Amino acid sequence: MIRFECDYAEGAHERILKRMIETNMEQTPGYGLDPHCERARELIKKECGKDVNVHFIVGGTQTNMIVLASLLKPYQGALCANTGHIEAHETGAIEATGHKVMTLPSDDGKIRAEQIEKAVEWHYAQGNREHITQPGAVYISHPTENGTTYTKDELAEISATCRKYNLPLFLDGARLGYGMAAPDSTITMKDLAEYCDVFYIGGTKVGALFGEAVVFCNGGGDFEFRYHIKQRGAMLAKGRLLGIQFETLFEDGLYYEISKGAIDKAMQIRDAFAAKGIKFLYDSPTNQQFPILPNDMLAKLNEKYASSYWEDVGPDHTAVRFCTSWATTQENVDELVKDIAAL
Amino acid sequence: MIRFECDYAEGAHERILKRMIETNMEQTPGYGLDPHCERARELIKKECGKDVNVHFIVGGTQTNMIVLASLLKPYQGALCANTGHIEAHETGAIEATGHKVMTLPSDDGKIRAEQIEKAVEWHYAQGNREHITQPGAVYISHPTENGTTYTKDELAEISATCRKYNLPLFLDGARLGYGMAAPDSTITMKDLAEYCDVFYIGGTKVGALFGEAVVFCNGGGDFEFRYHIKQRGAMLAKGRLLGIQFETLFEDGLYYEISKGAIDKAMQIRDAFAAKGIKFLYDSPTNQQFPILPNDMLAKLNEKYASSYWEDVGPDHTAVRFCTSWATTQENVDELVKDIAAL
Amino acid sequence: MIRFECDYAEGAHERILKRMIETNMEQTPGYGLDPHCERARELIKKECGKDVNVHFIVGGTQTNMIVLASLLKPYQGALCANTGHIEAHETGAIEATGHKVMTLPSDDGKIRAEQIEKAVEWHYAQGNREHITQPGAVYISHPTENGTTYTKDELAEISATCRKYNLPLFLDGARLGYGMAAPDSTITMKDLAEYCDVFYIGGTKVGALFGEAVVFCNGGGDFEFRYHIKQRGAMLAKGRLLGIQFETLFEDGLYYEISKGAIDKAMQIRDAFAAKGIKFLYDSPTNQQFPILPNDMLAKLNEKYASSYWEDVGPDHTAVRFCTSWATTQENVDELVKDIAAL
Amino acid sequence: MIRFECDYAEGAHERILKRMIETNMEQTPGYGLDPHCERARELIKKECGKDVNVHFIVGGTQTNMIVLASLLKPYQGALCANTGHIEAHETGAIEATGHKVMTLPSDDGKIRAEQIEKAVEWHYAQGNREHITQPGAVYISHPTENGTTYTKDELAEISATCRKYNLPLFLDGARLGYGMAAPDSTITMKDLAEYCDVFYIGGTKVGALFGEAVVFCNGGGDFEFRYHIKQRGAMLAKGRLLGIQFETLFEDGLYYEISKGAIDKAMQIRDAFAAKGIKFLYDSPTNQQFPILPNDMLAKLNEKYASSYWEDVGPDHTAVRFCTSWATTQENVDELVKDIAAL
Repeated sequence: MIRFECDYAEGAHERILKRMIETNMEQTPGYGLDPHCERARELIKKECGKDVNVHFIVGGTQTNMIVLASLLKPYQGALCANTGHIEAHETGAIEATGHKVMTLPSDDGKIRAEQIEKAVEWHYAQGNREHITQPGAVYISHPTENGTTYTKDELAEISATCRKYNLPLFLDGARLGYGMAAPDSTITMKDLAEYCDVFYIGGTKVGALFGEAVVFCNGGGDFEFRYHIKQRGAMLAKGRLLGIQFETLFEDGLYYEISKGAIDKAMQIRDAFAAKGIKFLYDSPTNQQFPILPNDMLAKLNEKYASSYWEDVGPDHTAVRFCTSWATTQENVDELVKDIAAL
Repeated sequence: MIRFECDYAEGAHERILKRMIETNMEQTPGYGLDPHCERARELIKKECGKDVNVHFIVGGTQTNMIVLASLLKPYQGALCANTGHIEAHETGAIEATGHKVMTLPSDDGKIRAEQIEKAVEWHYAQGNREHITQPGAVYISHPTENGTTYTKDELAEISATCRKYNLPLFLDGARLGYGMAAPDSTITMKDLAEYCDVFYIGGTKVGALFGEAVVFCNGGGDFEFRYHIKQRGAMLAKGRLLGIQFETLFEDGLYYEISKGAIDKAMQIRDAFAAKGIKFLYDSPTNQQFPILPNDMLAKLNEKYASSYWEDVGPDHTAVRFCTSWATTQENVDELVKDIAAL
Repeated sequence: MIRFECDYAEGAHERILKRMIETNMEQTPGYGLDPHCERARELIKKECGKDVNVHFIVGGTQTNMIVLASLLKPYQGALCANTGHIEAHETGAIEATGHKVMTLPSDDGKIRAEQIEKAVEWHYAQGNREHITQPGAVYISHPTENGTTYTKDELAEISATCRKYNLPLFLDGARLGYGMAAPDSTITMKDLAEYCDVFYIGGTKVGALFGEAVVFCNGGGDFEFRYHIKQRGAMLAKGRLLGIQFETLFEDGLYYEISKGAIDKAMQIRDAFAAKGIKFLYDSPTNQQFPILPNDMLAKLNEKYASSYWEDVGPDHTAVRFCTSWATTQENVDELVKDIAAL
Repeated sequence: MIRFECDYAEGAHERILKRMIETNMEQTPGYGLDPHCERARELIKKECGKDVNVHFIVGGTQTNMIVLASLLKPYQGALCANTGHIEAHETGAIEATGHKVMTLPSDDGKIRAEQIEKAVEWHYAQGNREHITQPGAVYISHPTENGTTYTKDELAEISATCRKYNLPLFLDGARLGYGMAAPDSTITMKDLAEYCDVFYIGGTKVGALFGEAVVFCNGGGDFEFRYHIKQRGAMLAKGRLLGIQFETLFEDGLYYEISKGAIDKAMQIRDAFAAKGIKFLYDSPTNQQFPILPNDMLAKLNEKYASSYWEDVGPDHTAVRFCTSWATTQENVDELVKDIAAL
């Protein structure tokens, strides 16, 4: 079985493993206060082109719940697409910190500045607004759970709307590398640092064993944020493991390089399906592709290739997800492309 | 600087790293459903001699909060020593899940069966007991945060008391290997599986990069526990990293072997201090030693060796902690012992 | 200004006040353990025709959050209409206890048994269901926030579906009296006690100063529920005030009698609007009526009568709410009816 | 049986009931936005001599949990005496909002400024303070649960210490009237408004059916606080009931007058016990008296008078509580005094 069903099926990029071995017997302070974390922070600051505050956390759901719990007052919720990860795939982790996820309808995983504006205006227009959860932050993903990406203009508009209403903008970048490497994408790390209040750079799905680098762009995320991390059980004792990985990813562009590789391979797969007249559930320029396959064609493909089920489309078709990642080999892609052509 | 201040200053045992490299490009399902986790579970079941349920979680605070939140009803709290990790060093992680930590006084980190009995009897004797947090579980550590250990009889008594009152007994084994390797300790993994309702086998401080193996001994911890793990942001995407580490630690006794090594070295350090007439804050048979040093002697030692501050003892003495671990070298211990003798 | 905008604009029925004065200097135990609460419990048991457990709580939001927090496991949420009070008008009170409100679409405030079945089946069919909030209870309102009511058959089907999936059914009866008095409604208190696991009998809007009687129908709600009440700050010191009110409401049918009076008056108002060709936003047989009025007509009415804004309907019409209650006078209704006719 | 066991055994002062009857059929907006609440706010502002923000809440535990949840960041706890109501008698209500109660030892229910200073200094001196709950507010009671009172100097010192460390000072005044009426007490409402950040004026135990008036003294407690109230289920629909009661209590000094009456009677009881050589568990100048009685003497008294059990004192004595209140009659006190003298 050749696996394309997710982007976290393998371990880590070999250079990360190598660095972990080299540093293994170094003695360092724990909890993210070591020289590797320090250096990784400096490298990320440089990418951002400004004096951001950076913290490292093991996983994405953990990061979402800690950041939102730190941003929101008890009676506030986070605006988010109804397809958003915090709404749909985190077992109520946000609610477990006491906050409502306030959904906005979305067909493609994205929300628009107007939706945010309308939701906030609606809230403050209510006669008894204190009976209703107050919007307290905006959560978006780039790329989204559906593989789609924001344009720079869309992001700028969302950011402007958030600032107009004094709502922190939090961007989930679990697959950020793949979003930035997407064809036509022009959003840079410096843009994110300008437009967001907090965002994170996903490591788990982009070459690391695990780890997300949370970046506070406008003065948040000082030392006190460490209390939040610890309180939610997320302060890794051997924090240097996070520092080492992000050092390796950002000291000479490895993060961008492996993201680019994954996107190139995803586009080959996309083109192969498209050449057969296959339609897609979402128009994704990133490492997740969602072809809508006739069930017999899917069954045949699945004899050799693992994909993940997404949803039924009519009685005879199924949308599935094929993912590439930093670990996808060109050999496996070639074989898949060839087999698609032969269907 | 030679570091003895904690037991998580280095990476992982070389055999663990080796295994991570060997398995790095294997493609496995995520979230702990892979063959490595499966095999590690089987190995731990074998150690326990019964059909336990095993889950793997990244860190100790995380484990404590998830397990207790799963055991307690909303209005219940956990009985624990006032020195317990959940009370003193977790930034209110248990309270953040809605539960009170109900402390019992302790001089040495341990609590006694009688204290539990008394606390429970007191509660149910109150006329308005529903105005008071109800004891809902018992949390103990073995070894404790002070390096002390329970005897098998003490553990059996605590267990019997818990069962008498239908209170789940949860044992924090963040340093379990060191507790089991302590001179005179007779508590085995099978004993733990018999006496506890839940306990965990600490990996982070005993040879792993990270990871705690949670063992449910009496029918708890079924599939539903995975919802708890996910909700608290603790489900590692590449869960096999946890499986691989515990496989390595338990396939041929590595866990016990490296624990034993750390204890041998700790005893050498203890003996060296004792030979100089130094007293100890706690009588610890484990890898943490708490000598009470004259301040000038401490200052001299600290020029070359890092220890961690514990507390002032009178105007001229300070109690500090010297830790050994699986990573401590005999060379460093020899040098420390020689320097202590020469003080 | 004559007020029809809500059903809690006045104090309490005169017989309730009279009883409070008569009993004022009685010395009773606090916290709901007095003879008045005891008698009120017995009266309600009699209405239910079975051995239910009854607790008294001051308000509706409070009741909703306490009951649901007591029914749900940490990772579970409550299924409810997207118009439900717990979703739309409680400032995230349910989420503040750690639980997601899981909405089902509704046009009229009601949900159907099939929707529940589908939601539950969907959940358990997911490959990674532990990443998703688990449905743990069903919340419905009778009458709904839109004034609509369930038929006995609909309630029976919902109940059967809940039992099939082992989901407690919780019915919010903040306006229960008005629902039971609705024309064609055949649901009795005994039916509720048979079909629900928990429901409550609203006092605040039906003659009392405040107070909701929570009824556990299938063995829940024992003494331990008092811990939940206290923990959420909801245990009234002078609990007998609740007992006295429910005693008065149920000792000789006052609750039903005043509910009937409010419905009669609501129907007069409904008929007056209908006679003018006015349409309604919802087809409500209860004390809340939602006429869709031309804006100029509304402006004229509002010079003399207070109603509450509901929503815009097209550019020139507005849906508003006119409420009757136990306190509405026939004189005021007559005047309103006459003025409507003259529009 | 003549009852002295608590101060909430009766209903409300007759003038309050009278006012409730007079206003019963007034139609007012709900949720505390009515003219009675408005007038009560103005009256309380006048008592405070400054522009405070006032909110009305039904009960004390409810008030404690809402105020503290509004003051604290997620990782902060409240410093309080180990005898404090939030620690000992609220079933973990504070923890249920996510916060630790951080206890300071107390023999008499009071804490001292030095204890607060020491606790805060200790916290910030810890090397790894982010692993420890951060002190975020100070909770004191006046009078305390033990009947003791703060002197004006003590309160001033606590206030100064809180301001030095930027900790909000929150004073629980569930029995405030009785504390202010205590012999030698010089603390006025204006002092409270100067020294506290938030305090509340207890109504439940001082003449009202229920109700606590929360006073924010330094700019907190604006409209947004209403979201907190609603979220915790504490926004009374017929909020005017709270306004009416506090209007009556403060429009011409009724609150002070009835408090004074209760204290006079408590002193008579105290003197009667003292004249028999009886010692007291606490030196209380307020409405709660804690005589330590020989068990045979207590048994005899309890044939006729209800008191509440406090604790055993040696094998043959028991400390009990005798309470007076606004409702205590001089006849009953005379009879008790006579019977004590005759023991």
